[in-house]
Amino acid sequence: MSKPAPGHKDATYHTECTGQALETVKAHSSPSELTLFGACFCPFVHRVWIALEYLQAPYQYREVDPYKKPADLLELNPKGLVPALKLSNGKGLAESTVILEYIDEKYGGGKGGKSLLPPLSDPYDRAVYRLAVDKVNRTLIPSFYRYLQAQEVEAQLEGAKEFTSNLADFVRSMPGSKGFWNGQGLSIVDCTVAPWLYRATNVLRHFRGFEPKELLEPELFERWESWSSTVFEHDAFKATTSTDDLYLDSYVRYSQNRPMTSQVADAINKGRGLP
Amino acid sequence: MSKPAPGHKDATYHTECTGQALETVKAHSSPSELTLFGACFCPFVHRVWIALEYLQAPYQYREVDPYKKPADLLELNPKGLVPALKLSNGKGLAESTVILEYIDEKYGGGKGGKSLLPPLSDPYDRAVYRLAVDKVNRTLIPSFYRYLQAQEVEAQLEGAKEFTSNLADFVRSMPGSKGFWNGQGLSIVDCTVAPWLYRATNVLRHFRGFEPKELLEPELFERWESWSSTVFEHDAFKATTSTDDLYLDSYVRYSQNRPMTSQVADAINKGRGLP
Repeated sequence: MSKPAPGHKDATYHTECTGQALETVKAHSSPSELTLFGACFCPFVHRVWIALEYLQAPYQYREVDPYKKPADLLELNPKGLVPALKLSNGKGLAESTVILEYIDEKYGGGKGGKSLLPPLSDPYDRAVYRLAVDKVNRTLIPSFYRYLQAQEVEAQLEGAKEFTSNLADFVRSMPGSKGFWNGQGLSIVDCTVAPWLYRATNVLRHFRGFEPKELLEPELFERWESWSSTVFEHDAFKATTSTDDLYLDSYVRYSQNRPMTSQVADAINKGRGLP
Repeated sequence: MSKPAPGHKDATYHTECTGQALETVKAHSSPSELTLFGACFCPFVHRVWIALEYLQAPYQYREVDPYKKPADLLELNPKGLVPALKLSNGKGLAESTVILEYIDEKYGGGKGGKSLLPPLSDPYDRAVYRLAVDKVNRTLIPSFYRYLQAQEVEAQLEGAKEFTSNLADFVRSMPGSKGFWNGQGLSIVDCTVAPWLYRATNVLRHFRGFEPKELLEPELFERWESWSSTVFEHDAFKATTSTDDLYLDSYVRYSQNRPMTSQVADAINKGRGLP
């Protein structure tokens, strides 16, 4: 990761990916079995995109301008939320967690036997993965936004504490002792959490001075380093990740907690669950 | 359903099920492959219990007194939350939605071919069911508590409006035109929502005057009546449901929004996601 430019203050509104993600968009610009409607900065889209790349599913990537939503997205989902996945039957799916399970059921277990979840013969193990996903969705991710949107110093300190505590819980609960969450290969848990933990390393670091080394106990920091270097260097992650400047630009609004930033930001401000 | 006794004001603290649920507890009092740790009034437990009955899974029901949590539950889950499911390998699972998928993967598709989700050959249909579950979890259920815990008249009117709007959305989105959610048989969606919609018919009716007939458009009310009479009369639902007085007693504290009522009530008051 490149260091964020000092004095990086003002928002640039990005309407396309950058870096390796842009190369991947170009390679997936033709109509295909699946259409992923995405937005270049969006971590919920990122989740799904990592999984599509990992399982080598056939898809077209369609960048959505939130101020100019395409008619075929609005047909699938009148709110025009991304990620949305359009299937070859013309129907659509929403909600990144549901889409991840769909992608795994449809495209997992194929060439190379890659899957996002353990095999059906292990319902207990599958439940353990789902518990981890559920916990990340309910704790770590909302605390990312509370931390980033906090304006007063005290609220920022509280935000750092809460986010770090959730991150420590996540790291502590990893079944594997190194590398991926499970110690073996990319799974639904890594796909679920990686987009935010990556944004912790650039967005939270830049706007809130987040430094895992200063905040995590040494043993947890070591496991964090092993996890993050493995996942962030995985081909499916790199292929779907833009350059740091895109993320820094995109989160200026969140860091200043400007009104109308997004439905996610509004939900956090109102103390409601994420949309 | 019996009409709630007029002037039903004071809380009785129940530590066992009543009515048909108590009969079921007695029939499932011996050690078995699964142990369901439950609490007699708890709708999250109710979800799982309906599914165990429906799929005829082997289980023992263990009532948990929240002030005197058994050691073997605390071993599984230091917070002692219910539902918790202990497996024959000694390991445990939490989170009702995750447990429902586990039960289906482990015990579904067996005798009689009953399942909570469409077959694996239909990943799109499975995703549609999961979207419905996700939506209920994120909208209808939190709005149940906001409505019940609202103290000022204005907040109660707002609560009624929000809950009714979410209920109408749920009814409107049913793929089936009558009976169960899907028009065919009990599914994960019915299990997920039924405990709260049943408590709407006694608890919300009693404490907040909730009357679906006055609030839903006639066409939606008709679909609601068809759904509720089908689901609430299903054997698996009846076998796991106590008498109305137990629910009315148990929700007095919520209706008065007393401090320390539950982690769910606290989360709603703090504007956080459900625990």
